[in-house]
Amino acid sequence: MFNKKEIYFDSAATTVVDEKVVKSMLPYYTEKYGNASSQHLIGQEAKRGIEESRSVIAKSICGSYDEIVFTGSGTEANNFVLKGLFFWNKTHNTGKNHIITSKIEHDCVLNACKWLEKQGARVTYLDVDKEGFIDIEDLKKAISEETLIVSIIHGNNEIGTIQDLEEIGKICKENNVYFHTDACQSYTKVNLNVKKLNLDLVTLNAHKIHGPKGVGALFIRKEIKNKIDPLLHGGGHEFGLRSSTENVAGIVGFATAYKIASNSDVKKMEKLRDYLIEEILKIPNAKLNGSKGDKRLANNINISFGNIEGEALGGYLNAYGISTSTGSACSSHSLEPSHVLTALGLEHGDINSSIRISLSKFNTKEEADYFLQILKKVVDKLRKMSPIKL
Amino acid sequence: MFNKKEIYFDSAATTVVDEKVVKSMLPYYTEKYGNASSQHLIGQEAKRGIEESRSVIAKSICGSYDEIVFTGSGTEANNFVLKGLFFWNKTHNTGKNHIITSKIEHDCVLNACKWLEKQGARVTYLDVDKEGFIDIEDLKKAISEETLIVSIIHGNNEIGTIQDLEEIGKICKENNVYFHTDACQSYTKVNLNVKKLNLDLVTLNAHKIHGPKGVGALFIRKEIKNKIDPLLHGGGHEFGLRSSTENVAGIVGFATAYKIASNSDVKKMEKLRDYLIEEILKIPNAKLNGSKGDKRLANNINISFGNIEGEALGGYLNAYGISTSTGSACSSHSLEPSHVLTALGLEHGDINSSIRISLSKFNTKEEADYFLQILKKVVDKLRKMSPIKL
Repeated sequence: MFNKKEIYFDSAATTVVDEKVVKSMLPYYTEKYGNASSQHLIGQEAKRGIEESRSVIAKSICGSYDEIVFTGSGTEANNFVLKGLFFWNKTHNTGKNHIITSKIEHDCVLNACKWLEKQGARVTYLDVDKEGFIDIEDLKKAISEETLIVSIIHGNNEIGTIQDLEEIGKICKENNVYFHTDACQSYTKVNLNVKKLNLDLVTLNAHKIHGPKGVGALFIRKEIKNKIDPLLHGGGHEFGLRSSTENVAGIVGFATAYKIASNSDVKKMEKLRDYLIEEILKIPNAKLNGSKGDKRLANNINISFGNIEGEALGGYLNAYGISTSTGSACSSHSLEPSHVLTALGLEHGDINSSIRISLSKFNTKEEADYFLQILKKVVDKLRKMSPIKL
Repeated sequence: MFNKKEIYFDSAATTVVDEKVVKSMLPYYTEKYGNASSQHLIGQEAKRGIEESRSVIAKSICGSYDEIVFTGSGTEANNFVLKGLFFWNKTHNTGKNHIITSKIEHDCVLNACKWLEKQGARVTYLDVDKEGFIDIEDLKKAISEETLIVSIIHGNNEIGTIQDLEEIGKICKENNVYFHTDACQSYTKVNLNVKKLNLDLVTLNAHKIHGPKGVGALFIRKEIKNKIDPLLHGGGHEFGLRSSTENVAGIVGFATAYKIASNSDVKKMEKLRDYLIEEILKIPNAKLNGSKGDKRLANNINISFGNIEGEALGGYLNAYGISTSTGSACSSHSLEPSHVLTALGLEHGDINSSIRISLSKFNTKEEADYFLQILKKVVDKLRKMSPIKL
């Protein structure tokens, strides 16, 4: 039953690090290994690596060099935004203590918000429709004098739904409210122009784009830099906003990963995604979760099969060497059903029978065909075993 | 004047990553690249890498496997301890809001404490004597009913002074107060047994021991794990205490760095340190900062020359290919004189004329001799230029 073929369809959880990325990192371990804060040559070489990378990441979203703060992860960047803004405003008695977010955010946003509620924040968790879109009217209604920030994920990690940031950005600007997006999943897949979208803060990370784990970045508009508390206090690195000896190799790898990402990779993934969706939906009672139109991440497929266990399906696929996910990998610490699928209003059976297939530029049509063949077989087998008949 | 020889005497700022460490990390970029939270094989391979590393780090300080939480840095671990304990106690109305630390802590402890003062914490910053030791009687006097934690650095990053943790640990235990130490500089150089020293929390990191930047760890005694708030909220990684996709390669590199560290390396550094101190003190008016006895980190030398600018000295040495530091690299973002040397009671001239020479296992007697020759020449030259005559 076990097959040697290894197919990785879980690139929304994390991606393989591109060989070119690794190659760009290596000199920073053994040659340019200095502390970027050191004044000597070997420290300054490290600093140059960081500063060049900062420019690359800044330009990638049409920001300025001094608006990028490197962090240790997307999770850290999201925690930093929410807690940093909340505490700065609390200390400065601005009266702004209201956060607006959605019910389909990544756990790091939701759990940071829940913690901030204990510290005195008021949080509105916006509903989403069946495809995972927030309602702009709901957003308008939620904004009040106390609203500090609107934080809405760009491309959802589980269902791939891409929110209309332009519309949200306009409303935030009109209401003088900060606008943040977690763009970890959409980065390099969907064009992101912070000026055009009126974005004040953007979370990015490396390990979803074939870069290393342990590196993220926060775009933070210049005017906000002195209106946010650091999450990590210390030696004053990263414009005083994020202390910690910089992970130079990781930062350089992050920039390399961005540089080698291309639009043709996105087109390739879209084509493979659409092929897979079309073929999978030929399986009786298979349903696509998330956006039915083109507002879906190029690499995301999320399907419910109705009367089988997603966990069992994932396990069987795994035995065939195919890695998929039953929701967010990050949720695997919890036994709760996916909060994202729940927010879509899916029935219990559809939540439990869902799997996520997430692609990367390295996946091929041959892999897709092999997968489809196995998937049909396994779904069929599991349905025969299932006590619930559709 | 420029010399091809490159001598790195700044290993307290950061160390070169050992080739063996890099080699151990590489498979986790391109082969075992999974997300350790994923249930499929490639995720579980990553998980195994982390869990084996966790055991290595735990055993290294006589802790248990489930008492190690990996972080993105020592700075993050120190921020996590102080803020996590403070907020947990605040939310639970325990009345414990008092932190005791010293005036010679790393900036990340001091600046986290200063921020916590704004959130309602009371902080005692203990004085140190001329060699950098805290006074145990001061500590005893400072402890009150409200005292939550005592956080004292093990080996100081600037002057190398090693505190008597055993004595401090006893007092903390007697008074039922948590005891934390930042052991980033002392790790692998001074034996650290959390049981013997009554340590409840210990901060470690990788990049001071020839591991990669961007990885740290917090030892957190079992009983405290549910009495601390996370600093990074999210998907519930690291026993729910530190969310973020784990930096698998970095964590594996950290454990490798520990595994290859040896006592003979420490002996080698001590020998070279003592030789250098002896020779440097032959320069007229050169004074050793920090402990005069054996309670000094194996790799630390800190010297004041009296009437010259440490920055100028460092600059000249750099031109000769010798990397040293004028205090902590982390302090280089600040124009303030070193808070550590200030706390020792040093005069302005002695603070300004100080340099730190910090060694690694890779430094040799030949490097030391070359350095001594250049040092004498440069000090002499700068003294001739100085308007202040000693």
